[in-house]
Amino acid sequence: MSQASETLNTDRLSHTNWDAIPVEQLSPLIGRHFIVGTSVMIARVLLKQGAIVPLHHHHNEQVSYILEGALKFVLKTETGDREITVRAGEVLCIPPNLPHEAHALEDTVDLDIFNPPRQDWIDGSDAYLRK
Amino acid sequence: MSQASETLNTDRLSHTNWDAIPVEQLSPLIGRHFIVGTSVMIARVLLKQGAIVPLHHHHNEQVSYILEGALKFVLKTETGDREITVRAGEVLCIPPNLPHEAHALEDTVDLDIFNPPRQDWIDGSDAYLRK
Repeated sequence: MSQASETLNTDRLSHTNWDAIPVEQLSPLIGRHFIVGTSVMIARVLLKQGAIVPLHHHHNEQVSYILEGALKFVLKTETGDREITVRAGEVLCIPPNLPHEAHALEDTVDLDIFNPPRQDWIDGSDAYLRK
Repeated sequence: MSQASETLNTDRLSHTNWDAIPVEQLSPLIGRHFIVGTSVMIARVLLKQGAIVPLHHHHNEQVSYILEGALKFVLKTETGDREITVRAGEVLCIPPNLPHEAHALEDTVDLDIFNPPRQDWIDGSDAYLRK
């Protein structure tokens, strides 16, 4: 534990109820809301069965904790495609820059954590998710 | 989204079921298990009603998402103590270095996210939590 800093950034202190954050409907099958902290973003992604997040990659580390449902990820590793189905109560850690896609096998509540926050989500330049 | 890196660290790719990670009982009222990604740690902290996490601070950003129960935080800000009760479905973002304590008002499941990972939790030098 470090010394308390002289430059405490308490304007980043926030208390939020998910119910108070409107869910943005990105497509008929994918909704999302998120909270941005200091260097971390936490998002609830709500996917209906059959939703597909197409292949993409980003410099942000991603940790996906499936709260309800099941997501099948396809990850493009150096040794070929890896298919991993992540079910409720399971966590997938995706390192930075690893290309991946996701398929909702059931109606799913996916808690996504990113470091740093996804600037493309914040500024709405996340066309790959919208159609 | 950045270009896929030449130095993809796929050994940080991991798929974990919380049920497969033993809960470490730090005290009669506090249990914990965690998963370490690349720059992010995600932990489930299980607090029985009456559990107290004493005042402490750390350079790591903390995001606490209460999945069940209720935690009352006391935060030592420049303008004095701030008391915030975080209930199920709510998120508290605590910026780096901000001193805080926590009191479990009910049996609570607290999902804690840290950036960077808490080295004191990894190496067991987290005496403030153990008694």
